[in-house]
Amino acid sequence: MRHSSPLDLSGVFPPLTTPFNADESLAIDQLRENVAQYNRTLLAGYVVTGSTGEALFLTHEETERLWAEVRQAAPPEKILIAGTGAESTSQTIHLTNSAARLGYAAALVRTPHYFKSQMTPDALAEYFLRVADAARIPILIYSVPQFTGIAVEAPLVARLSEHPNIIGIKESSGNVQRIAEIVASVRAGFAVLVGSAATFYPSLAVGAAGGILALACALPNECVELYHAARSGEMQRAQQLQLSLLPAATSLVSRFGVSGLKYSLDRLGYYGGPARRPLLSLSESAKHEIDEVLAAFATRVISAR
Amino acid sequence: MRHSSPLDLSGVFPPLTTPFNADESLAIDQLRENVAQYNRTLLAGYVVTGSTGEALFLTHEETERLWAEVRQAAPPEKILIAGTGAESTSQTIHLTNSAARLGYAAALVRTPHYFKSQMTPDALAEYFLRVADAARIPILIYSVPQFTGIAVEAPLVARLSEHPNIIGIKESSGNVQRIAEIVASVRAGFAVLVGSAATFYPSLAVGAAGGILALACALPNECVELYHAARSGEMQRAQQLQLSLLPAATSLVSRFGVSGLKYSLDRLGYYGGPARRPLLSLSESAKHEIDEVLAAFATRVISAR
Amino acid sequence: MRHSSPLDLSGVFPPLTTPFNADESLAIDQLRENVAQYNRTLLAGYVVTGSTGEALFLTHEETERLWAEVRQAAPPEKILIAGTGAESTSQTIHLTNSAARLGYAAALVRTPHYFKSQMTPDALAEYFLRVADAARIPILIYSVPQFTGIAVEAPLVARLSEHPNIIGIKESSGNVQRIAEIVASVRAGFAVLVGSAATFYPSLAVGAAGGILALACALPNECVELYHAARSGEMQRAQQLQLSLLPAATSLVSRFGVSGLKYSLDRLGYYGGPARRPLLSLSESAKHEIDEVLAAFATRVISAR
Amino acid sequence: MRHSSPLDLSGVFPPLTTPFNADESLAIDQLRENVAQYNRTLLAGYVVTGSTGEALFLTHEETERLWAEVRQAAPPEKILIAGTGAESTSQTIHLTNSAARLGYAAALVRTPHYFKSQMTPDALAEYFLRVADAARIPILIYSVPQFTGIAVEAPLVARLSEHPNIIGIKESSGNVQRIAEIVASVRAGFAVLVGSAATFYPSLAVGAAGGILALACALPNECVELYHAARSGEMQRAQQLQLSLLPAATSLVSRFGVSGLKYSLDRLGYYGGPARRPLLSLSESAKHEIDEVLAAFATRVISAR
Repeated sequence: MRHSSPLDLSGVFPPLTTPFNADESLAIDQLRENVAQYNRTLLAGYVVTGSTGEALFLTHEETERLWAEVRQAAPPEKILIAGTGAESTSQTIHLTNSAARLGYAAALVRTPHYFKSQMTPDALAEYFLRVADAARIPILIYSVPQFTGIAVEAPLVARLSEHPNIIGIKESSGNVQRIAEIVASVRAGFAVLVGSAATFYPSLAVGAAGGILALACALPNECVELYHAARSGEMQRAQQLQLSLLPAATSLVSRFGVSGLKYSLDRLGYYGGPARRPLLSLSESAKHEIDEVLAAFATRVISAR
Repeated sequence: MRHSSPLDLSGVFPPLTTPFNADESLAIDQLRENVAQYNRTLLAGYVVTGSTGEALFLTHEETERLWAEVRQAAPPEKILIAGTGAESTSQTIHLTNSAARLGYAAALVRTPHYFKSQMTPDALAEYFLRVADAARIPILIYSVPQFTGIAVEAPLVARLSEHPNIIGIKESSGNVQRIAEIVASVRAGFAVLVGSAATFYPSLAVGAAGGILALACALPNECVELYHAARSGEMQRAQQLQLSLLPAATSLVSRFGVSGLKYSLDRLGYYGGPARRPLLSLSESAKHEIDEVLAAFATRVISAR
Repeated sequence: MRHSSPLDLSGVFPPLTTPFNADESLAIDQLRENVAQYNRTLLAGYVVTGSTGEALFLTHEETERLWAEVRQAAPPEKILIAGTGAESTSQTIHLTNSAARLGYAAALVRTPHYFKSQMTPDALAEYFLRVADAARIPILIYSVPQFTGIAVEAPLVARLSEHPNIIGIKESSGNVQRIAEIVASVRAGFAVLVGSAATFYPSLAVGAAGGILALACALPNECVELYHAARSGEMQRAQQLQLSLLPAATSLVSRFGVSGLKYSLDRLGYYGGPARRPLLSLSESAKHEIDEVLAAFATRVISAR
Repeated sequence: MRHSSPLDLSGVFPPLTTPFNADESLAIDQLRENVAQYNRTLLAGYVVTGSTGEALFLTHEETERLWAEVRQAAPPEKILIAGTGAESTSQTIHLTNSAARLGYAAALVRTPHYFKSQMTPDALAEYFLRVADAARIPILIYSVPQFTGIAVEAPLVARLSEHPNIIGIKESSGNVQRIAEIVASVRAGFAVLVGSAATFYPSLAVGAAGGILALACALPNECVELYHAARSGEMQRAQQLQLSLLPAATSLVSRFGVSGLKYSLDRLGYYGGPARRPLLSLSESAKHEIDEVLAAFATRVISAR
């Protein structure tokens, strides 16, 4: 049941968007084309059916279809991670092992969250330990309080990091102190991945191994560039790149959500397309704001080089 | 597509718990027995697959099975409401029309909530209007910020109440000012149901039509008694009953969640059974606290008579 | 040190605004005129230098001046309560005994709040017990989380209500469940006063003794009318009055703060005048909104009669 | 009115604790001794009567006494900053100019915060601009949402940084993204100082000029060491020092507040003494926890060298 060969999760992973046609059906060809473009970058791998992939809007069948298609479209050196967290323990285990069967290297398991006040550290510990015991691939904890209202704090991560099948965490709150506390308390080799492009460099500075960044769907090379600047100790350059990425991180991802990111993809040569309802399409003013951010961003990145 | 015959939603509705066996499979016989007991009360009807019914832990097949079973077990005079809210608009419509086909009188539609910051009043309005347009039975808005992080405020409820197929709201925040603001702003005949036993009487005082109360699964007669005292203007008695229900509302429902309520059912002659994981079973100290609340509550209710 | 003669705090108290001249100096004549008008109502008494009195903008000398002036302007049957809460225990005791010396019947003592995370129930208990021990007049607890970030919960109130010199609480959160929990847990005779006009009637319904209502500065008769309707069991009328007061409570007090209330006073025949800086004067659109609320309110109250 | 000679605020400043005797009176000799010890470090200067100095518990006379004493005890090369923020604009201006008269180089001006909902960006802008216009020394904005409930966001800081007499900000939220956004948007030369030792290094990484750190009262050399490691580009060392400071930052400052910090000072050869009431003295278990943190910290720092 346990996975023992080490998986190197350092680097940048985009949580892929899920392309839809105008009628909200899956746009498989466009997915393949997006992946083909990402294959030509230095991205470390892909997360499929994460939050940005609109996982909560997908049926079980659609989810498995997406996993299979990306598996086929990606070369073996790209690490594939499937988002498999559901509200019930049994459903999460079921999804995780489906992903394993389809050749995924690891699963990203979001905290259950509907019954917030019951999701105490003890309840979360039991949940993740049960899933880890039953999963045929290693799992990463996924803490995303802006969506779930639940944050996994360092003491719980430390406790879970002792399990051989729990190999990392995606921490998406943007709280750099929490990243530092997690880094300081987990076993060696446990991968702390940051899920917020706006705090990527400061998180790397305190010891994060990499990032699962929605922004990397739109700006993969720029995110990878920041990663390498930080890793190679080019502080000035890393700071400059981080500051230049801030408005994009804020507008494309945080303010306008999946719809904003998909619009940006359309502007940048990928397929974005519509988000599923109830997400609204972007207003004209939002489109204009993103256009300006992308323009200003382009200028700033160039001057930083 | 629209439903025009008026449905009287005043009174008390329990959101039924979903009985499970020890292996987490549906315990259908026990469900039937619980409903048979509730049939002998003055409850106005039942909500099936609401939050308390652990809707988010159920598969689509289980959900439809539960709807069919309760439909069969309940007499025609009990109003049946199905919880049908999903994250995507299309899935909510699909579930709502399944419930219609199975003979449900109305659907309770929770706010989508995962992408919280995108769930603006405009996005929620479009969501509920689309669902209402497509639904073959009338719908109620379900606002439960303690689980979703999203509250539907009075101006939006007023706007939605203009749609002929949106006939009411379950407002579960416990915020009595919000109940009053909604009552003051919706069209006549729109049913404001409170989803919090701890504020049932003050909510009725400002004009709520009734309640969908998890506590009514455990204490149906006492909740109905409070409803009638409030309606018939017995202020002293209503106040006393409300204060006596407070500790039960807090312990059985708010503090210990579905597990606490199910434990109480087991103590009170219904079938409670286990909750699905990741919900934990109750600790011994929690059981003890509930036992004490039930004992003290029994004493207080008696002295109030 | 203890005060034993009982003080009946039922009814409606306005927390008086502090009139300033255009140069921000105290406008004593206008204060006297306001009090003279309030003397002709059925208000139970006055709170001086509460939050609405801009207590935190006043020097020690100004505070004592205001206490002396209102003492002189008010007839003996009006109960006078002084706001005396400071951040340090010693300063609060000092102010409370100054108010006692100037003839005040009781002191309203706000929770210290700057060091929020340190203000545990134990720290607050020690604070209030020390102040109560040292005070020459009885004190009321003042819990106003919208300003302080600190709420005093029922178990702590129950504990403090055992002290003979702590005779009541002003609970301003608008949380009716909390009011009910406090009523259910304190000793008999302990006065629970609500500090939110928007939830006045539902709070009275669950057992509050009265209210300290900023709205009563502008609309004293209407607040008193609601109080008497609720007390005499006229449910329909109380509900109607409460709903009619909602927009005024929201606009005049919650949305636009002291500046909004002072503007309303100017419109209603009292002296409002400017608030002290950094409070801004009202925008034209805010003034217009208040004008409309006052107009609509007038109409609705009349039709309710 | 304006100050034009540039003041270099880079480096580490402790916000000095205010020593009290057992009877809560000022302990002036102990203050002088503490300052004498700090004079032998590389601290850039001192903040007097900040939050950590229990400013809100001090009378006006005590405040001025403290300013005068520290002025006398500190050598000219240490930059002196006075905490002068009060709730009213006029009182803040009065205090700021008292500090100027006593020889302080700058004033640290906390956001007014009692009437939170009225403290909009426009109201805060007017406040800081008025104070800056009237102040005879330059001012720093002080944003400390954990105490005030109010955060000053980057667009407002950018706007205020245009005023020649507003020369910097102390940002104490620990939100590194906000630090980065401020750095990216203010005029050149505007000093962004971080007020949270737990995020000192990541904040420096994104461009902060230094820190005003409560932890630097207890561990001045270690904070200065981290500052210099970060500034000289020793990433590994800076990361290690930051992680080693985390438990101290959390326990001594965040969890146990001023009482925890003063206890630590007593353990480390400074005078700590009691905090003023209502702050409680430390429990034995809290003391024990701090003892352990100081011991573990000492070990870790040594091994990092």
